[in-house]
Amino acid sequence: MAQEQILEGIRILDFTRALAGPTCTRLFAEMGAEVIKVESAPAGDLTRRVSKIRNERSLYFVQQSLNKKSVCLDLRKPQSLALLKELVKECDVVVENFKPGVIDEMGLGFATLQTLKPDIILCSISALGQSGPLSAKPGYDYIAQAYSGVTSMIGDPQDAPSLPLLGVGDVMTGVHAAFAVAAALLYRARTGRGKHLDIALLDAYYHCHEVNVHQYSGSHGAIKPTRGGRHLSYVCPAGVYKARDGYITIMAFLHHWADLCRAMGRADLIDHPDYKDDPTRLSRLEPLTAMIEAWLVGFPGKDEAIAHLESFGVPCAPVLSVEETVNHPHHIARGTVRVIKDRLAGEFAIPGMPIRVMGMEANQMFEAPTLGQHNAEVLGTVLGKSAEEITALEAGGVLYAREV
Amino acid sequence: MAQEQILEGIRILDFTRALAGPTCTRLFAEMGAEVIKVESAPAGDLTRRVSKIRNERSLYFVQQSLNKKSVCLDLRKPQSLALLKELVKECDVVVENFKPGVIDEMGLGFATLQTLKPDIILCSISALGQSGPLSAKPGYDYIAQAYSGVTSMIGDPQDAPSLPLLGVGDVMTGVHAAFAVAAALLYRARTGRGKHLDIALLDAYYHCHEVNVHQYSGSHGAIKPTRGGRHLSYVCPAGVYKARDGYITIMAFLHHWADLCRAMGRADLIDHPDYKDDPTRLSRLEPLTAMIEAWLVGFPGKDEAIAHLESFGVPCAPVLSVEETVNHPHHIARGTVRVIKDRLAGEFAIPGMPIRVMGMEANQMFEAPTLGQHNAEVLGTVLGKSAEEITALEAGGVLYAREV
Repeated sequence: MAQEQILEGIRILDFTRALAGPTCTRLFAEMGAEVIKVESAPAGDLTRRVSKIRNERSLYFVQQSLNKKSVCLDLRKPQSLALLKELVKECDVVVENFKPGVIDEMGLGFATLQTLKPDIILCSISALGQSGPLSAKPGYDYIAQAYSGVTSMIGDPQDAPSLPLLGVGDVMTGVHAAFAVAAALLYRARTGRGKHLDIALLDAYYHCHEVNVHQYSGSHGAIKPTRGGRHLSYVCPAGVYKARDGYITIMAFLHHWADLCRAMGRADLIDHPDYKDDPTRLSRLEPLTAMIEAWLVGFPGKDEAIAHLESFGVPCAPVLSVEETVNHPHHIARGTVRVIKDRLAGEFAIPGMPIRVMGMEANQMFEAPTLGQHNAEVLGTVLGKSAEEITALEAGGVLYAREV
Repeated sequence: MAQEQILEGIRILDFTRALAGPTCTRLFAEMGAEVIKVESAPAGDLTRRVSKIRNERSLYFVQQSLNKKSVCLDLRKPQSLALLKELVKECDVVVENFKPGVIDEMGLGFATLQTLKPDIILCSISALGQSGPLSAKPGYDYIAQAYSGVTSMIGDPQDAPSLPLLGVGDVMTGVHAAFAVAAALLYRARTGRGKHLDIALLDAYYHCHEVNVHQYSGSHGAIKPTRGGRHLSYVCPAGVYKARDGYITIMAFLHHWADLCRAMGRADLIDHPDYKDDPTRLSRLEPLTAMIEAWLVGFPGKDEAIAHLESFGVPCAPVLSVEETVNHPHHIARGTVRVIKDRLAGEFAIPGMPIRVMGMEANQMFEAPTLGQHNAEVLGTVLGKSAEEITALEAGGVLYAREV
């Protein structure tokens, strides 16, 4: 625990809820920044009550809150706003993901923050952005995903689009926000000035269209990108194929077609007129898929098929279930998956820290805070309040704490 | 163009190809860092020849290379390696996404870089990471996605998984890398020390499992997360629904169920025993979906249905096609989509910069370089080479340039 930390010395006031905002501040917290999470008494963060619960402790909350400090205030009391303003003066960054406009209504908009701390950085995270005709819409991940055109690119083309059952949009938006905050800190170091950042799920999702937007626009509408089910739509074969005991992703386009032909013992197909290049093969997607799958069932399972394909240089991978990832030797060896220990919920696995620094341990044994756990510590060390003042604030119901 | 830039004063030597690496360095370039892209003579970056081409110019390359400088070298000549080493001495950061080990074989591994510039930051981006038993596997986005368990969470549960037809993994991995580099720059500013960063698509994808890993592990295997097609699997109704002219994402779980009932004129269902809570509704997913879709076809189209749903407070959104996003007033007003002008390829649309700083223009009129466009500029201004020296390097075939 005495490890030197990459982002030591940075203090963040964290008003975030749900997932995108907490991801941003968690990255900072796990890299050594001091993240002061503000929770509203008496319930605290909504996510303390969602997903898998053990001993009244949400594993979701623990995963998202490692190494954060919890300060829990009764936000209906005017002293709470005054305390928050005192904290702003001692912080480098404020992060929030309320609906656009709410932070202003709370009396903590950027103009106010600047009067308290002239070089403050405010990062506002929202679904559709702080500006534009749709900015007031409510902010779920899948709402922004639908508006971004991303949903339209996932699933069977003859059927309804599919929704990925994980928080890709929220999490990567949090990473976009973390980068924006780090960039603003570098800017502040150079110029002495703070900035207000506007990070949106819509923009982050849209950022991922590496070809779709320019293909539509650059072809003057002749190319209309849409989803392709389990296959890529521009090269072939490239997709998900059924083996006896599961699925395999195979990327055998361009020069890898020859590798696949050799792996299948069908070198005769390498230059066959029906299969000679990607467009020709795309026009024969169904029979080609059937041919590959008929060949795959000749193996006992996906592991044997993959070993064979790899021996011929064909890029491929097993489609692992979540269960298989948690128990996979690579994921364990690398720390892609890690086991944490919470004093209330016990041991369980979560994703590892995705930011790896050689020579430093990415997955440190951090804990998540109980509600209001750091009330006295933060008010004492950051604001210099005396033990008597803190006791009075507790007695007056301004500060709140509970072992959950 | 005289706008003050957030990341001015940072110089990056960019060996990246494909998508994850170029995304990382493009973010820095568009925020004002000096990014020197190294290309190999005579062909240059592979992506100069992929996706939509106009006037021999790849729109893909343009999108990924805005405001980067191109230096094109014949890497078979020993003078090229010497020049690269001279450049390292003048750079803050080196970014590469070769297969693990290749940068060492090139003679530019981290230990060597440190002898050239003791506080250098090296960011290595790969599919499955620099360490672990699978680290040598080839690196396509969908390979890492399959290993991450993400593919298994997308598509119809009765059928093969679906592949999202956009570069979510590569792009967000590039953002993870950009954050890592910015964090390392903050660390260097504080300590004077550089670091070697190890960013993997696998880890970035895995990072997005906000609930799946802890639900499997925390339930001791009782919960086995898998895909759910067009519906979420833990709340209901929450999914994609068919309207007359397209699809609508509706998130009407928990208290929004009552909003949807009122919107459908079926307040009688709010507390009905068959539909009273999310688990009950999940057990009736098919008839409930049929009921919602039967009601939706009563509207002329999705716009009218959404207006009605929103008037009752139901979170929803149209599933926009890429075509619809490019022409959407919100996306245009906000700059989520932007039109750029390339002097060879002309005008076309691409995604806007996802990092927004209030009071600064996110989408600046940057250009992408032609092959070797900045040979003389970089060697002159960064390395202090004379015009004669540069001419000799050109004549000797060390430097190469072509207007493509």
